[in-house]
This record gives sequence, structure tokens and C-alpha cells, in this order.
Amino acid sequence: MTELEIEFLPDKRRARVPAGVSVADAAAAAGIGLETPCGGEGLCGKCRVKLLGPAPTPTPEEIELLGDDLLRAGFRLACRARPESDVSVYVPPQSRRVEQSILVEGIARELVLDPAVTKSYVEVPVPSLDDQRGDLERVLDAAGRPRAACALPLLRELASIMRGAGWHVTTVFADDELIAVEPGDRGGSVYGMAFDIGTTTVVGYLIDLATGRQAAVASDTNAQVAHGEDVVTRIQFASEHPAGLELLRRDVVGVVNGIIAQCCRAAGIEKNQIYDLTLVGNTCMHHLLLGLPPDNLAVLPYVATVTSAQRLLAADLGLDVNPAGRCYVLPNIAGFVGADTVAVILAAELDRGDALRVAIDIGTNGEVVVAAGGRIIACSTAAGPAFEGATISRGMRATSGAIDGVSIAEDVSFTTINGASASGICGSGLIDAVAELRRLGVVDETGRMLPPARAHELPPGIARRLRGDEERPQFVIAWPHETPDGEPLTITARDVRQFQLAKGALYTGVDLLLEEIGAEASEVEELLLAGAFGSYVKRESAVAVGLIPALPLERIRSIGNAAGAGAKLALAARSMRERAEQVAHRVEYVELSRKPDFHLRFADAMTLSALIPGESKASGR
Amino acid sequence: MTELEIEFLPDKRRARVPAGVSVADAAAAAGIGLETPCGGEGLCGKCRVKLLGPAPTPTPEEIELLGDDLLRAGFRLACRARPESDVSVYVPPQSRRVEQSILVEGIARELVLDPAVTKSYVEVPVPSLDDQRGDLERVLDAAGRPRAACALPLLRELASIMRGAGWHVTTVFADDELIAVEPGDRGGSVYGMAFDIGTTTVVGYLIDLATGRQAAVASDTNAQVAHGEDVVTRIQFASEHPAGLELLRRDVVGVVNGIIAQCCRAAGIEKNQIYDLTLVGNTCMHHLLLGLPPDNLAVLPYVATVTSAQRLLAADLGLDVNPAGRCYVLPNIAGFVGADTVAVILAAELDRGDALRVAIDIGTNGEVVVAAGGRIIACSTAAGPAFEGATISRGMRATSGAIDGVSIAEDVSFTTINGASASGICGSGLIDAVAELRRLGVVDETGRMLPPARAHELPPGIARRLRGDEERPQFVIAWPHETPDGEPLTITARDVRQFQLAKGALYTGVDLLLEEIGAEASEVEELLLAGAFGSYVKRESAVAVGLIPALPLERIRSIGNAAGAGAKLALAARSMRERAEQVAHRVEYVELSRKPDFHLRFADAMTLSALIPGESKASGR
Repeated sequence: MTELEIEFLPDKRRARVPAGVSVADAAAAAGIGLETPCGGEGLCGKCRVKLLGPAPTPTPEEIELLGDDLLRAGFRLACRARPESDVSVYVPPQSRRVEQSILVEGIARELVLDPAVTKSYVEVPVPSLDDQRGDLERVLDAAGRPRAACALPLLRELASIMRGAGWHVTTVFADDELIAVEPGDRGGSVYGMAFDIGTTTVVGYLIDLATGRQAAVASDTNAQVAHGEDVVTRIQFASEHPAGLELLRRDVVGVVNGIIAQCCRAAGIEKNQIYDLTLVGNTCMHHLLLGLPPDNLAVLPYVATVTSAQRLLAADLGLDVNPAGRCYVLPNIAGFVGADTVAVILAAELDRGDALRVAIDIGTNGEVVVAAGGRIIACSTAAGPAFEGATISRGMRATSGAIDGVSIAEDVSFTTINGASASGICGSGLIDAVAELRRLGVVDETGRMLPPARAHELPPGIARRLRGDEERPQFVIAWPHETPDGEPLTITARDVRQFQLAKGALYTGVDLLLEEIGAEASEVEELLLAGAFGSYVKRESAVAVGLIPALPLERIRSIGNAAGAGAKLALAARSMRERAEQVAHRVEYVELSRKPDFHLRFADAMTLSALIPGESKASGR
Repeated sequence: MTELEIEFLPDKRRARVPAGVSVADAAAAAGIGLETPCGGEGLCGKCRVKLLGPAPTPTPEEIELLGDDLLRAGFRLACRARPESDVSVYVPPQSRRVEQSILVEGIARELVLDPAVTKSYVEVPVPSLDDQRGDLERVLDAAGRPRAACALPLLRELASIMRGAGWHVTTVFADDELIAVEPGDRGGSVYGMAFDIGTTTVVGYLIDLATGRQAAVASDTNAQVAHGEDVVTRIQFASEHPAGLELLRRDVVGVVNGIIAQCCRAAGIEKNQIYDLTLVGNTCMHHLLLGLPPDNLAVLPYVATVTSAQRLLAADLGLDVNPAGRCYVLPNIAGFVGADTVAVILAAELDRGDALRVAIDIGTNGEVVVAAGGRIIACSTAAGPAFEGATISRGMRATSGAIDGVSIAEDVSFTTINGASASGICGSGLIDAVAELRRLGVVDETGRMLPPARAHELPPGIARRLRGDEERPQFVIAWPHETPDGEPLTITARDVRQFQLAKGALYTGVDLLLEEIGAEASEVEELLLAGAFGSYVKRESAVAVGLIPALPLERIRSIGNAAGAGAKLALAARSMRERAEQVAHRVEYVELSRKPDFHLRFADAMTLSALIPGESKASGR
């Protein structure tokens, strides 16, 4: 059988396909998505491409939809044109399948869908004495992927699947491997899931890989919290308990599998339809998920077992998707800056452009990234899980019933996720609440809460909310009738202290990285606030409590769960995986504890007030 | 840490290595073997190379061994020179490690050793706050293979192995994967085994991959013979018996594991030191070994599940070598022409040159290959296991005690393998014996044996050997005192008939393939006789019985077990694997049963006399 080589420009990607295959199918084989709203039926004319060489005789559809001038210039419809010899094909931008802004919250991103896993229906020629190709070669040729591999378990089933299906099968390829062959036409139902494995919270996104559409999202507490709230405690548990590592590994695998099941129910699909996973997390979460001993992450010089990206079988990790499913674990940067930070950098495109930009990812570990002039530096801060609710008396993660926004005027008003009765308060609600309490003087600059005895200094709607005693004052955010358990929901003086420790750690990270890169905070052109909050963090609140430098608000953007968004990008496009690997190599890790004045700066950074960046120094510029 | 890129010419292979690494180590990383009889100590001067760019300051050893002129021309010793910047290095042929004629019996072949698996000792830099690379990246960088992968099980052990070994470890790479890390310096003890899985006989060769030396060889009967002597019977067993395929798979895996154990004992090595296997066999043996259902091989249109080469973990096939060991199963050509024929083509270099050449591989299936003018065509014949002893009354495979050569003058004289007492007769002995009996008139052209009543027509030394009755005459090759069981060793009239069927099938294959390629037998420039015989087949005998066309003897060569030799080539050099894959694509399979006059030709070909090729036609040229 004759084979052709079709080259696609400007991508310079090539596909070897049997003669007679359409340009659109060759493009799919080369991993290039084309606009085909009509489903490749030659009806919409959206998939026009230009053949830079001998173009086949136009079909009636092409004559109608393109017209003489375009046809003469070599334009054809990719779904109709079947080249008769090797040819280069130029794909104009408007003919490419583009997904706009759907994958990344808070950041408008155009992304050409090019998932690692693709599914297609093929009618395989029946063998004869004149065509004695092997079953595998036959189906690979028909799918236009003649050089793909196939693992032994599938190979052992292949002959009976192909014959049982009368040679009409749906193939599933992951990168350069045929991973599944299903009888008949199973359509385009290939799903993937992107996971952000946080120390406290695990979030999973179910994505339809044929369209890029998000079909479901679910999150759950990382069950490892039972063995310690922060990574250091878990590392101790892993090394001191005889089966510690295995217990922690099973915890997180169980949570991930639960989220997979939950998303499948929500979207009405089978787990079997999920063929690809991407996973990000900090380096400790990464090691625990992979079953790698995390011990050395906790001792000098804080070395990971592996930082490079891992391509695995989902089954190797115990993840419950299609048995042939793959997973891609994004690369880490260093012992305390993990794949989640790589994902934030991808989502925020900190690896592009020269401007001075800062991203803060607020989770159990707060990671800070500063990019400028081609350099990217990053650190991890011991922010702790306050923003995920763990150290806050009525804290909770951002699920239904969490207070995610608070404002105080005459009285307190708040919003909850899904509008449910207020069960607790999540990160964005906490930042708002502390900012408002500070503004009203309920809390002072040092974090001290007004004792109830001095409540009369406040407006009456506020004063009645101040409770407790001189030692342990607290402030009621939600009254008993507003909560499901009939208890008032309060913020305590101790909660404020926990908040200060967390935000102080983050601010110190920003402060020291800016120093490292040789820039003033006032020069920051964009500051991005990321985190798995319930709602986007209010910039005013973040500035007011001194969580971030007091920049003009238009330079501050809240971008939601950017780590999850980065994981989704790596799921949707293979090019993003390459880019993640480049990023992981490029980022310079800064060890904050080595900075001589770290503790002094940290103490200063706990102040609850707007921290005006480099005012005195800025005037000298 | 600075990395350099060293390019080797004329190979155009590159290695990225840390600065400070010697050219010899960089060459090893690039898969180029250099002559280092002194062990890379700068003593022998054999590894001289020419740096085409800035050459480092010569060491005292280089000044002494090379002299001013060579040094000025850029020559250095690869084991001494440590480039300080990217550079191209020309490697002269005399500096390359070359293995000559040791791998292939009967064919002088030069081969640059370049095995898929390599082992090297590395001293890995200890981590520090200034060097926080992950454990994996650290060891890969130190080994000069920064982009290699590593599977999860090894990754899980890596941190403790590296620290337990004080960062001095021996790495084992297979292609682009780190497959093992062992504490300390384990030297170059990497072994591989090449297997020829015959229908009747399995042969394994243990090869030291650092030197190319054959350390041991062993063979055994394929235990599957208990379920049928030929492939068709085994295919029936596999499809009719509920666990048939699994039983046959275990049979052959058991035999291969037995041969591995036997070779390890003979060479005094551990199974753990074997990291790579290559396997060839006919397509049915291939399918049974891999656990692929062979059913479709036996029904029209005789289609294999897979013909392409397979790269697997040895453990996936149940083969008992190092748990991280790899195996490479050579590609098949078609349903009845397997990887063993690809191996014969490699060993005989039938894929090179334009001359009309014929190779006949005599096993249970006799495969015939004809190459001419860039075309290679092949067929399989139903020769049956006569040459492996199975259908011959006192037949045996070529092991100790087998009669492997027979000549008859006044009386019979014979040789046995290892000079042991004569237990039976193997292929080469059988061909000799029939040729001699035919020459003396004990057997006539049609294969009829002289009845004992007519023994007086023979010389007395021969006459007394004719035994049996008119119906069942037999000829004594070895007297009772020459055999271990004290029974005479005879060739029966029925044995001669079995021989005729086998050799007739082979001759018909040669005849029809020559017709297919449009050539006369007299034009054949080289005819190669391959097979796992005890000794090389005597050309005179092969011609005398009409096993092959009666060409001038200088055009006939006997090349021993060429399938095994091809498997060894693919073990010793990765380039041979690529070549095997090209060969498998290129060879055209010819289905003999489709030839209209197949049966007529077969009947003619059973004649026991020299078959003079195309005499009448040749005169017309």
C-alpha cells in the first residue's frame, strides 16, 4: 500500500498516512486540530488549507465553498482533499480549532487543543492473500499511525477484538502508543482529568478531550490530613511509621479515585472513558502520590528523589480510570517548590515576556514566583493551611456553605458558596473579614482584637458581635440562625494570629524574592493572586491586610486556582507538557531560610496594614 | 553545572555530558565503543581521536604516546582528554572497538559493538544547598545521560540506594532508560542472551556485552513438541485445548529459562547479570512465546497478530534474568516467515548488494530467501522436522553423541558431536548418509532402498550392513558396540522417504522463488545453507541428494545457525535492530500454495539426484 508524507506548516509537523486519507485525518494524525463544525462533511468550509504542491482535483463541495480564485491558489477543504503524493500543507490560523478562555479561570488564553490521547473510528481493510499485513500493522496503517507501539496485554486481545468487531473499530492512541481498540464506532468520548493535589485540598477537573470543555469539577479534603496538617508532619509520619509512606499514598490515591467517581457521576460518563490524567502538587504531595520516600525533603539540603516529569500508566499509581489510561505528572522545581508552581507559571505565562511580574499561590505552602527579564525565581513559604481553613477555628475549605466574601458597613454581610447556610469560612472570606475588622478597628495593626469591654467604641450593629472575655475575644460573623448547627460562627483572636503568621510568611517571600531579583515592589507591573479559594480574592482586602504590597489595584489580578488551570493546560495540549519541562529547568529556586535577615523581615511582615512598597527608595529613582 | 555537547564523527552521534568528563566516557554515552585494551588508563595509546576544535592541554601520557605532530594536529587520547567546550571529535576506524568474525559462524563480519544495555560506574556529586538537583537528575547528569527515563519501581528505591552507596554507584541503561542502579563499582559485567526459538530446538547464546565475546551456548528440545511436532498441530492444540495457548507459552518459557540457567552455570555468572535478550523464531513460535493466539496463522489468509519488532521487559514474558532486564523480539515478515528469517537475512547480509543470492534455512519449517537487484523475496516450506531428527527413526538434534558426518568407502565411517558414543543422527549426518547410500546404489533415485536379498551386489563391508526384510529394509550406520544402548543405529527405508519429503519441499521453494524473481538457478552467485546442524552441511552431499541446485561448489556456503547469528547481531548492536526492522518491511512474502504447479514441482523435487539447474535455458543466454 502506498504511503504519503504530509507536512503541516507553519508547525513543521508531519504525518505518514496511507494514500487516500483526507488532509483532515492526516492533520489529526499529526496532532493538529482543525475547525470542523460540520463534522468533516464538506458543508461548512471552515477547514480550508493551502496545499503547497500538487493539489488533487477539487470536489463539488470545494468548488462551491471555495470558488475559482482560492482553488487556483491551492486552497482545498481539509476534510475533502485526499492528496495523491507527498505534500506540504499550510494551515491558516482561522482554520485551526481554538479553545478560548475556557480552560483557565481569570486568564484569557487561547489554546490549540492537542491532547496526548486521541480516539478515532477506523474501518480496517479485511486481510486477504494479497494483503497479509499483521493485525497490528493493519489497524495502525488504517489509523494513519504506522509507527505507533502497542503493549503486550492489548496485543494479546487484538486478533479477537478486530475479528469480533468485523474490522470496524475505535482506536485510542496516547502519544505514540495504541492503548485501546474498542469494537465499532465509539465516537469521540475521550475524557481526561487534571488534578491539583494540595496538602489540604485535592481538586479534580474532568475535561472532554475532543472539545476542551470542562464536564465536571470536584474537590475533597486530602485524607492525609489525618496524619498531619502540614508537609513536615507527614514526612515525619512517613519515615517514622513502618507503613507510613504506603498509608499516605493510599490516602491520596483514595481521594483522587473518589473525585474521579464524583466527576463521572456528575457528567454521566463511565470511568472507562477517562484515558489521560495530569497531576500537579507540591514536591511532597508528588512524592507521596508516587510512593517515593519523602524523607530527604525535610532534611538539609532538601533534595527530591526526582524533579523531572513522569509519564506513567494510571494503573501504576492505582488510579481508577480506563485500565490503559495514562498519566502525566508535571515536573517539580526543587524540594519545596513543586509541579503546582510549574502549573501556576504555565497558567500565568510567567515564562513569556520580560516585565516584572509576581505570582503568589496561596495554599498550605504559599509559593511565590517572581519573573523579570527572562529570569524566573521561586520560593516556598511556610504559610500553613490558614487559607484552607485548617488552623482557623471555624475555617473550612471552599465548598458549599463556606463564607467566601465578607463586607461590613452598618452590620456584617457575607456570601456563601452555593448560597447555603454558613458552615464555616474559607480563604477569601477570611481575608475579607480580617480586612474589614481591621478597617473598623476591631483588630489593630499588631493583630490584637478589641476586648468586649470596649465594644461601646464601635457602631452598635458591630458592637453586639464582639463576644468572649478580655483573654479570648471573638467576633460573630454569622448568627446561630444563619448556621446549620445553630451555633454562632465567630472569628477568634487566635484565628487572627494564625492569619498573620500565614500572610506574614507570604509577604516575606515576595519581599525577599524581589530583593533577590534586584527590583523594588513598586516596580511590579503585575501581581497575580492564585489559590483554590471559594471566590476570587478581593484585591482591596489583600492590600489592606498587608498580604501583598500596596500596588495600584489595576496591577493586581486574582486568578483563582492557577495550579489546577496549569494542570488542565497540560491535559489539553502536549506542547504545554514540553513547556512545563522547560519551565522546571529554568526556574531558580531560592531557599528563604538562608537569607540572614529572614526572621526580622518575617516579624515586620506580620503587621496588619497596607505595606507601601519601597516608598523612600522609589523616590530616589 | 556546565554541560558540554560532544559530537562524534563520522557517526554524527552526540552526547551531552558534564564538563570534566573524558572523551571516552562521552563516546560511551553516545554509544560508540573505543579500543581501550589498557582499561582507559592512558597506557596503550589505542584510543586516539582527533578533536576538530579547541583541544585541551595534553597530559604527560598524551605527550609520550602521541608525539608533537599528532598533538598539533588535534589528536588526543580519548581516555585522557577532557574537553572544556563543545567540540566535534573524529574517531578513526583503528580506534574503534571492533569484534571480528566472532559473532557469526561461517561468515566473516565486522561489527562495532553498540549494545542497547550499557553499564558504567559513576561518582555522583553529593547534594548541597548550592546543588539541590533531585536524586534522579543527579545520577543521570553524572552518567552523561540527562534525558533518560526511569520507571517507578526503581525510582522508589533510588534515594536509599544512592545514600546507602555513598553516591558511588554503577548505572545500567537500556536504550534511553535507567533500568538499574547498583551500589559501588560493579564493573562491566553486563551480559545478554540471543535466542533462536525453533519449532523443535531452542538455542541460546550468552554474550558478554562489554566485549562481544560468547561466554556460553546451550540448546534444548522445545518442550512444545509434546503437543505436536509441527506448527500446525500446535496451533490446533492452542485453539482447541481450553488452556492450550498458556500451556504452550509456559513450555517454551520454561525451556528458555532452562537454557539461561545452563549458560549461567557454564560461564559462572548470575542470572541477575543478564540485562538484555534478543529472540527470533518463526511466526508461530513468536506468537506462542508472546502469548498471542496463533489461530489465524493456520487459516486463510494466514495473518499474524503482529509483525513489527517488540521491545518488552523480559519479566513481561516470564523470562528469568535481571528483573529490570529488557528483551527485543525481532520483527516477523508474514504468517509463515518469521523473525528467524529476518535474522538469517541480517547474518547473511542479503539486504546488501545486487547479486542473485539464495539462503535456505533448514529447520522444522524450511525458509527460503532469494535476493537480487534490491529485491528480497521469501517463502516458507513444509519441510518438517526431519533435519532436526524428529521424523527419523534414530534421528536426534545436534547435541552430544549425534552423528553429524558420515562417509562410506570400503566401510562406513562417521563422526559424532563431542566424539561421544553414537546416540542418533542429526541433520548434517542424515544428508551425508543419504548422499553416500545413493552414491553406492543402496538407495536409488526414487528413494527405494535395496532389499537385503540383493546385498551381494554391494562391496562386502557395505553389504553386511543391509538388514531387515524386503518390505522394511534398513542400513546399519553404527554397530551395537558403537552405541550407548547396545542397539545398532540404522537408517530405514521410511527414514529415506521422510528425508525426500523434507528436501523436496525445500527444493521446490528455491525453484519457485527463482521463477518469481525471474532468474535461472544457474545464475545464482551464492547459495547459503543455514540450520542448527551439528556440523556444517557438506556441500557435495547437499548437491548429490538434490537438496539444492547443482551449482559449482565454490558458489555454495554452509553458514551454520544463521538465525541464531542474526539474533546475536541484534544483541550486539542497536543498528542491527533498525536494520532488522527495515528488512522485515522490505521482504516480499510469496505464498507457495498459490502457485498452480506447486504439487507437480514438489513431486519432481523428491528425486534423489543432483538437479542440474536450467541447463537448456542457460545455453540460450
